[in-house]
Amino acid sequence: MKIGMVGLGRMGMNMGLRLLQKGHGVVAFNRTAEKTRKLMEQGAEGSFSLAELVSKLPAPRVVWLMLPAGKVVDDHIEALRDILDPGDIIVEGGNSHYRDDIRRAEGLKSSGIHYLDAGVSGGIWGLQVGYCTMIGGDSEDVVRLEPVFRDLAPENGYLHCGPTGAGHYVKMIHNGIEYGMMEAYGEGFALLESSPYRDHLDYAAVAGLWNQGSVIRSWLLELLEKAFAEDGRLNGITGHVEDSGEGRWTVDEAVANGVSAPVIALALFQRFQSRDPNSFANRVLAALRREFGGHAVKKAE
Amino acid sequence: MKIGMVGLGRMGMNMGLRLLQKGHGVVAFNRTAEKTRKLMEQGAEGSFSLAELVSKLPAPRVVWLMLPAGKVVDDHIEALRDILDPGDIIVEGGNSHYRDDIRRAEGLKSSGIHYLDAGVSGGIWGLQVGYCTMIGGDSEDVVRLEPVFRDLAPENGYLHCGPTGAGHYVKMIHNGIEYGMMEAYGEGFALLESSPYRDHLDYAAVAGLWNQGSVIRSWLLELLEKAFAEDGRLNGITGHVEDSGEGRWTVDEAVANGVSAPVIALALFQRFQSRDPNSFANRVLAALRREFGGHAVKKAE
Repeated sequence: MKIGMVGLGRMGMNMGLRLLQKGHGVVAFNRTAEKTRKLMEQGAEGSFSLAELVSKLPAPRVVWLMLPAGKVVDDHIEALRDILDPGDIIVEGGNSHYRDDIRRAEGLKSSGIHYLDAGVSGGIWGLQVGYCTMIGGDSEDVVRLEPVFRDLAPENGYLHCGPTGAGHYVKMIHNGIEYGMMEAYGEGFALLESSPYRDHLDYAAVAGLWNQGSVIRSWLLELLEKAFAEDGRLNGITGHVEDSGEGRWTVDEAVANGVSAPVIALALFQRFQSRDPNSFANRVLAALRREFGGHAVKKAE
Repeated sequence: MKIGMVGLGRMGMNMGLRLLQKGHGVVAFNRTAEKTRKLMEQGAEGSFSLAELVSKLPAPRVVWLMLPAGKVVDDHIEALRDILDPGDIIVEGGNSHYRDDIRRAEGLKSSGIHYLDAGVSGGIWGLQVGYCTMIGGDSEDVVRLEPVFRDLAPENGYLHCGPTGAGHYVKMIHNGIEYGMMEAYGEGFALLESSPYRDHLDYAAVAGLWNQGSVIRSWLLELLEKAFAEDGRLNGITGHVEDSGEGRWTVDEAVANGVSAPVIALALFQRFQSRDPNSFANRVLAALRREFGGHAVKKAE
């Protein structure tokens, strides 16, 4: 089928490319025209305004948004609301909060515009492997878009998870789990690096070994094998770790629902800590040890 | 080659079976003769004492121990020391602590008996998939045993990690990582189960979906898919979670080395907590809330 792809960042560009490779029509739009032209070179129709994008799509239209989460998504939806027709579908494929999905779907109802939320995992490997896609919204809309979901995803790699917001909810929890898993691997290799065997250990070989029949084999461990093969002690990077929001939302959700998720919360806090090794909390501790025990502090330079 | 297999529990039995299937000779010994007879039916030579086992092996002999960790391993090694010859190899394939490996290898030196430690992962699936095998000890002993390691393991599934103890050290850390990963998955599904979408969610389908191209795909998640397919809400089991020692050793090691491994430690403590929902710590908290705030406590029945 033919769909509009709005937002050609790392994800949107590759998803557009994958759809083109699978024989779909893609009408591309990006705020900076350069990227639109890049996808045109790969066979997409180009458009240089949302109005042009809409005019090039057959009704009922499908417009897939791959934009940074937040206001920019709302702005695009507001603009689209004025130029789309009843029965058209907006798919929000970015990293929206599920509550924003519910608000947006509700807000579009009076215009007769349908809304699906699609949480997409797979990162830069999705172009090749396919994007694991978690979908929320009405069944009939999901069915209508099945040709697109099927070709974006690996085999059996998309699921209609429930009503509006369910796709991004399941994606959010996926990311929370990811935080915990990554921290567990990180700590494990840090323990090896602190061990009496460290000088004997080749971490690419250990990660590679563990991926052969061990209980902790995983795709993340395959990525670690690759990273260690390129830089055996990761000396080329620092341990500053960013987060992209879903981890925070997962912990917010645990608090809101009164559910214990301590490892996911701790994995998130470890990322915060990673950006602030000389943290205020640690300075408070050092000060207190000096006060009650006369323990030396390390003076700031 | 022909090796002695001592200890035919769930792991030892299947490893003996796998070696037989790959064309190796196995002389079996187990404290209760029943299991020895069971492996004899599959083609093993039987023995009903360690002396008989040793007499049926060609020199230099290889005796592989698959026994519960602790004193029973030391007892067997003591008994074997008296009847083995210089140049024979004992492989400790159970879940020994790496410090016990170092002590034992040292203790055997005067007798000329060689010692390898082999940490083995793969659980009940190893028979079919192969056992991921982490080996510590001298290179020449590892090379001598390569035909056995190669056939026990999946392709590329064994690694000489370093000197004595390195195999069990790497296996210990593997298990620590496993604790963190399992807890992360557990918390993630608990969050889904607390969510507004819970009645729409089929957890076998979600686990199955996540295994198709998502960042958190793993073998553990495949096992979860299977578990949820059999019992969608796990109503047939309680949340009492045991631990088998390596998680504790991993945390001991983090403390000994002064390395932060908070998620692995917390995952271990969560298991302790799972066995004691009415914990003393929680009763202390409830008592304090009553004392300072007059908050109601739930009386013990």
